[in-house]
Amino acid sequence: MTTTSYIAYDRGSDQRPKTHAINPATGLALEPGFAAPSSDEVEMAISLAASAFPAYSNTSPASRSAFLRTIAEELLGDVDAIAERGILETGLPDARLRGETARTIGQLRMFADMLDAGIWLDARIEEAIPDRQPLPKPDIRSMHRPLGPVAVFCASNFPLAFSVAGGDTASALAAGCPVIAKAHSSHPGVAALAAAAIVRAAKRCEMPAGVFSLLYGSGSEVGMQLVKHPQIKAVGFTGSFKGGKALMDAAAARPEPIPVYAEMSSINPVIFLPRILDEKSPQLAEAFLQSLTLGVGQFCTNPGLVFIVDHNAATFIETLSTSIQSAAPGVMLNAGICQAYQDATDLVAAEPGVKKYTSAVAPTHGQGVPQVFVIDAKDFMGNPKLTHEMFGPASLIVIGSKEEIATALASLEGQLTGSIHGTTDDLLSYKFLVDTLEKRVGRLIFNGFPTGVEVCHSMVHGGPYPSTSDGKSTSVGTMAVHRFTRPVAWQNCPQELLPRELQNGNPLCIPRLLNGALSKS
Amino acid sequence: MTTTSYIAYDRGSDQRPKTHAINPATGLALEPGFAAPSSDEVEMAISLAASAFPAYSNTSPASRSAFLRTIAEELLGDVDAIAERGILETGLPDARLRGETARTIGQLRMFADMLDAGIWLDARIEEAIPDRQPLPKPDIRSMHRPLGPVAVFCASNFPLAFSVAGGDTASALAAGCPVIAKAHSSHPGVAALAAAAIVRAAKRCEMPAGVFSLLYGSGSEVGMQLVKHPQIKAVGFTGSFKGGKALMDAAAARPEPIPVYAEMSSINPVIFLPRILDEKSPQLAEAFLQSLTLGVGQFCTNPGLVFIVDHNAATFIETLSTSIQSAAPGVMLNAGICQAYQDATDLVAAEPGVKKYTSAVAPTHGQGVPQVFVIDAKDFMGNPKLTHEMFGPASLIVIGSKEEIATALASLEGQLTGSIHGTTDDLLSYKFLVDTLEKRVGRLIFNGFPTGVEVCHSMVHGGPYPSTSDGKSTSVGTMAVHRFTRPVAWQNCPQELLPRELQNGNPLCIPRLLNGALSKS
Repeated sequence: MTTTSYIAYDRGSDQRPKTHAINPATGLALEPGFAAPSSDEVEMAISLAASAFPAYSNTSPASRSAFLRTIAEELLGDVDAIAERGILETGLPDARLRGETARTIGQLRMFADMLDAGIWLDARIEEAIPDRQPLPKPDIRSMHRPLGPVAVFCASNFPLAFSVAGGDTASALAAGCPVIAKAHSSHPGVAALAAAAIVRAAKRCEMPAGVFSLLYGSGSEVGMQLVKHPQIKAVGFTGSFKGGKALMDAAAARPEPIPVYAEMSSINPVIFLPRILDEKSPQLAEAFLQSLTLGVGQFCTNPGLVFIVDHNAATFIETLSTSIQSAAPGVMLNAGICQAYQDATDLVAAEPGVKKYTSAVAPTHGQGVPQVFVIDAKDFMGNPKLTHEMFGPASLIVIGSKEEIATALASLEGQLTGSIHGTTDDLLSYKFLVDTLEKRVGRLIFNGFPTGVEVCHSMVHGGPYPSTSDGKSTSVGTMAVHRFTRPVAWQNCPQELLPRELQNGNPLCIPRLLNGALSKS
Repeated sequence: MTTTSYIAYDRGSDQRPKTHAINPATGLALEPGFAAPSSDEVEMAISLAASAFPAYSNTSPASRSAFLRTIAEELLGDVDAIAERGILETGLPDARLRGETARTIGQLRMFADMLDAGIWLDARIEEAIPDRQPLPKPDIRSMHRPLGPVAVFCASNFPLAFSVAGGDTASALAAGCPVIAKAHSSHPGVAALAAAAIVRAAKRCEMPAGVFSLLYGSGSEVGMQLVKHPQIKAVGFTGSFKGGKALMDAAAARPEPIPVYAEMSSINPVIFLPRILDEKSPQLAEAFLQSLTLGVGQFCTNPGLVFIVDHNAATFIETLSTSIQSAAPGVMLNAGICQAYQDATDLVAAEPGVKKYTSAVAPTHGQGVPQVFVIDAKDFMGNPKLTHEMFGPASLIVIGSKEEIATALASLEGQLTGSIHGTTDDLLSYKFLVDTLEKRVGRLIFNGFPTGVEVCHSMVHGGPYPSTSDGKSTSVGTMAVHRFTRPVAWQNCPQELLPRELQNGNPLCIPRLLNGALSKS
């Protein structure tokens, strides 16, 4: 395993201070150590990315598609090594790591398919009308073009799908932007394996040097150097609100502000309506507990806040309180997350009116214990401490009338998801709650739980601030590519100089908006 | 003419301090005075917009389309009054005011057509695959939804097309967002006429009260109250860099930051290549002068910087220096703009190496005099004072080698447009200049000038910072609607609760992405 940064096709110095990942299940340091890049090395990675940009931005969609498929292929060959190292670095189980690698590979291929299909370009052609009165109409053609080098920050909780070769990198590379990834200090070894796969693929596909770099380094120094650098044109981040907000502020304070796509905190409200609770409270309680404890609750879509509307909830709570006793604690991703989880749940437990139900299984080192808190809506309202994210397998259940719940929902901050369980009758009677929820979230889920984010064309994994820095974006699905593009128009451009995507005769056979109507010609 | 703010369907108090527009051609105040709203009235307008949002956001595309067409119709009936008042308030000629009103009406109808066609929604459906392994695939559908109440700031230089009923308002209303417009203090009377047309249309179409308000007020107080208010969800602005940056900073500092779409300053570089200069320098010089002096140069697309590449330019300059002598000075929009123009051109004239050519026609009160400055590339490079916008009929011509011009171009800030004149041979030989220009601009123009922004599907009237606050957006053309929308996804939603746009059977007959392929079914 390599232990220095990838500065494009070169490597950083081995003579720099090293940090080690810690096995969260044992608290012990893992070999080898990974060297932080010098500030000159960071500068070199950025400079190579900037130099690669003109050539990479003009590669054909077909060649970028082939590049993404080659990365996928290279990753596939390393699944065993990734899973083996990932278990040590993250405490996540083998099946999860293999599943997440498969998802990451599928995601790369989805963006390759998107490049092949071409609709993402939003290619538009308005033909000239030279004899229009009072003025001639010019020929104007537009499509999406890449922004420039992108800095990608890896997430602690998704060592593959939201890390080095994850959705931010895949979408930026698809757009035509070089990527500089900043490894997460919790899983540098997995980062090294993913980066090696990307670099092998870039070489195989003869991509310009600088199309990809991977930087190590603990603390915020390397990251801030990236975000503040004039040659970096956008940022992708998945992590805490505090981390995301620091990047947003730094990006907004630049002489040239740049977009930061930060996916941050979300408590993902789940609403249960009365008729469906009458029908199947026990099943709903079990399904909720399963969603809550999946991946030790370390998902940004974890259901952290539940509303039980116009129902006494006794059966639901009874099932839950029984089942949670045998819910297994799990190793959390790192010591910091484990401690933060402890602190956040202790804080909620101490609030007035809160009743606590918890697993009876004793945790071992680094484990988070499933917990559920129950409160009456009257005690919930106006207590802002109760809407902070408890990152981990904990949730707060609020029981109240529809008026109380409507008020509570309307005062919630932006969320990635909102879920609502009800019979069709329920949903129609409580449609005002659905409408209120829609204004607060990126994804509305009916009779399901928010964990499990489908990677597809229609996915919105984003939501109003503070769940993300930009509620107009998604970090999952093909729409994610537009975080790293902007439209450009060509007016009266000779055919020879137009991008092939916009030339007469449609040589790439992509869907285009021709004088306002969709066309394949 | 009404002289108080429109607080939805009500009116602000007449007992507040009033300000008068000044006729820029005479320097005299115009009757009547317009009353600034109280802070309570501003609050009321916002509160009514927020109350209108749920209902307005759920109006059908067809009813919003009808609303926009009705505004167009109402404006059409007021063209004479608008032109008559506009001449007094702006100094713009009758034909321009009528032309701009026609453009504004056309723009409203374009967004209505867009709503009818439906592709702007980017409706996407991925159908469920219940038996997919290892996990079932859910049904996920997404489309664009409106952000919420939008504050629109009117521009000094476009009293119609970028003001009360202009592109920002039209696109926000099309998206489903209520609008609160802030009138520009230079043309409150034109604002009153446009607002009256919108209010009449809203009543005729039975839109919820609060879908539109118009606020007067000089200074930044009313504007800042709007931008900082938690119920305002986006901002549209066209004006100075200073004004736009103040809004950006205020919006970024909110507890919930919101997007600001500010179209600010741009000097719109124009490149002349050698072979075309050989062919027709005199014609190019005349056409350039015409573009430069159009509307007294008060366009954000005014060609403020010219590069003459690998050519001695003698004929071009000779024609220009002769023709400019008889170029008529024109009344500028207001005294502040006229003074700023004077200051900016004086500053450039005083820089080392600058040669000045100017109109020989003596200006009358409030007029700006056409001026052209010429400098050698060697003197231009590294002098940042020479790339500031001179808002008005002035331009700086830089003469140099391709190496010098390439360096100068690469160091330019973001621009709305970049133009390049050349024979096809020229353009192919100097393609590296086209590529460099593309990275700096929103719209590339070949053998033409940047003034004249076509209102159509493919227009990009945006550009990298600081030409706009968000280089991923356009303020002209149908793509402008996406400034005021965000994607929302519905997962496993019963048909009865889905928006009609996403229901099975495609009741609205709009193009949708069905399992990755475009479909009308």
